[in-house]
Amino acid sequence: MTTQQIIEQIKFKKSFLTIGLDVDLEKIPTHLLQVEDPIFEFNKAIIDATHDLAVAYKPNIAFYEAYGIKGWISLKKTINYINEKYPEIFTIADAKRGDIGNTSSMYAKAFFEDLQFDSVTVAPYMGKDSVEPFLAFENKHTIMLALTSNDGAFDFQTLLVNKDQQEKELYKEVLETSKKWKNSENLMYVVGATKAEYFAEIRKIIPDSFLLVPGVGAQGGSLAEVCKYGLNSNIGLLINSSRAIIYASNRTDFAKKAREEALKIKQKMEVILQANL
Amino acid sequence: MTTQQIIEQIKFKKSFLTIGLDVDLEKIPTHLLQVEDPIFEFNKAIIDATHDLAVAYKPNIAFYEAYGIKGWISLKKTINYINEKYPEIFTIADAKRGDIGNTSSMYAKAFFEDLQFDSVTVAPYMGKDSVEPFLAFENKHTIMLALTSNDGAFDFQTLLVNKDQQEKELYKEVLETSKKWKNSENLMYVVGATKAEYFAEIRKIIPDSFLLVPGVGAQGGSLAEVCKYGLNSNIGLLINSSRAIIYASNRTDFAKKAREEALKIKQKMEVILQANL
Repeated sequence: MTTQQIIEQIKFKKSFLTIGLDVDLEKIPTHLLQVEDPIFEFNKAIIDATHDLAVAYKPNIAFYEAYGIKGWISLKKTINYINEKYPEIFTIADAKRGDIGNTSSMYAKAFFEDLQFDSVTVAPYMGKDSVEPFLAFENKHTIMLALTSNDGAFDFQTLLVNKDQQEKELYKEVLETSKKWKNSENLMYVVGATKAEYFAEIRKIIPDSFLLVPGVGAQGGSLAEVCKYGLNSNIGLLINSSRAIIYASNRTDFAKKAREEALKIKQKMEVILQANL
Repeated sequence: MTTQQIIEQIKFKKSFLTIGLDVDLEKIPTHLLQVEDPIFEFNKAIIDATHDLAVAYKPNIAFYEAYGIKGWISLKKTINYINEKYPEIFTIADAKRGDIGNTSSMYAKAFFEDLQFDSVTVAPYMGKDSVEPFLAFENKHTIMLALTSNDGAFDFQTLLVNKDQQEKELYKEVLETSKKWKNSENLMYVVGATKAEYFAEIRKIIPDSFLLVPGVGAQGGSLAEVCKYGLNSNIGLLINSSRAIIYASNRTDFAKKAREEALKIKQKMEVILQANL
């Protein structure tokens, strides 16, 4: 999927909502536990109920890996379902991968070729040759961690580093450096919503890139604040909400309630888009 | 597995060799492609031929994920085979995982509970709450990236950071900070062999920890140099070799040739251990 197609979808749906599919068997409605593949059935119901309100779905790969081979089967069925029934949807494998070059190539193959995701999240610690194998895929997107939404973000990401006689936070150096990598036009970045004041600084470094923003809702970030500093002329934001939507109810009405929560966010987004475009 | 058991195994086998199982269908002997599960059959033959020379096996998870569900089945069969037939062997899931707390818990569950690995590699970028969920598992080991063996290691890991009025490389700050995390006695670290001169510095910060050392052999690192600076009184090193051993031959004699290569490294290790213990 091209960036232009993502932008067109946002404008058409008046939404830049990403729904995180962090499916935990201990949290889904108990009546689903009796079907053959509860995780897939849950996802299918959530997707069918919300696909017109969201532009992207983001399965959190850990939640599938935790169930072993059964989990991978659920993941594969979920991505196939989206790709077949809703091909306009942007799909994100939230996997936080990254390794030496030949290994990153295998991860890229796993998510872009075997599973046919449009994008995958990666970690920057191992540098250029750990990310470029992902960037080599045309019309696929590599979403690199910059500033995350958790407390641990302040352990290393905001440390001041010295580079070329300048002092700046590590996450800014990560952004600056990554712009020079081959096929860097295929990069997007993860920036946590819990730190809205950082968005203005980040936009100085990467004005045009899309940002995937977790942390709105359950983690406490404000949609209005993030948009105030983070929106660009092509929108440039994908705002993720997981638990607040998918676990809005744990009864048989879970999909209906998920839609209601997604609609609330989508309506706020529509107002913001009307004011900004 | 306890650290003490790893040390006893090293002393008994006179080896601190880890064999990396980075199995690529394009590199294994073509006669194996006709069996039902070529990856597992390859691993089984390599393990049977080398288990008395190595103390650990390290499947590189990307190489299994790249083959989708079939790859995960091969991985599960491989780890089950080691755990059942060679329970003394230390097993490492080379996965480079790490995410916010509740997600890292799911990754820990995947590798420690579902797959029953003794250890998993993790990335530090997201900080304390992305690693502590792994550390919470008793007698399991979390092997965190410190200084890796690839070129990209110099993009961020060796940047100078300012912390408490002191200037030091990022990887040293990663080591220092991680020592304060809960259950940090369950931490080991990845330190690349291609930078042997760094080991002396690293040992000042973490004198007692085990280091997993990739980059000997195919990536050019020297075993003698690494041992000179990296050995501690409990050995404290697990030296990984992958391609030089498992792809020593791509014919029907591949397991025999893998043993010969492993034996060469083991014999060098035996000499080093005799001189140092």
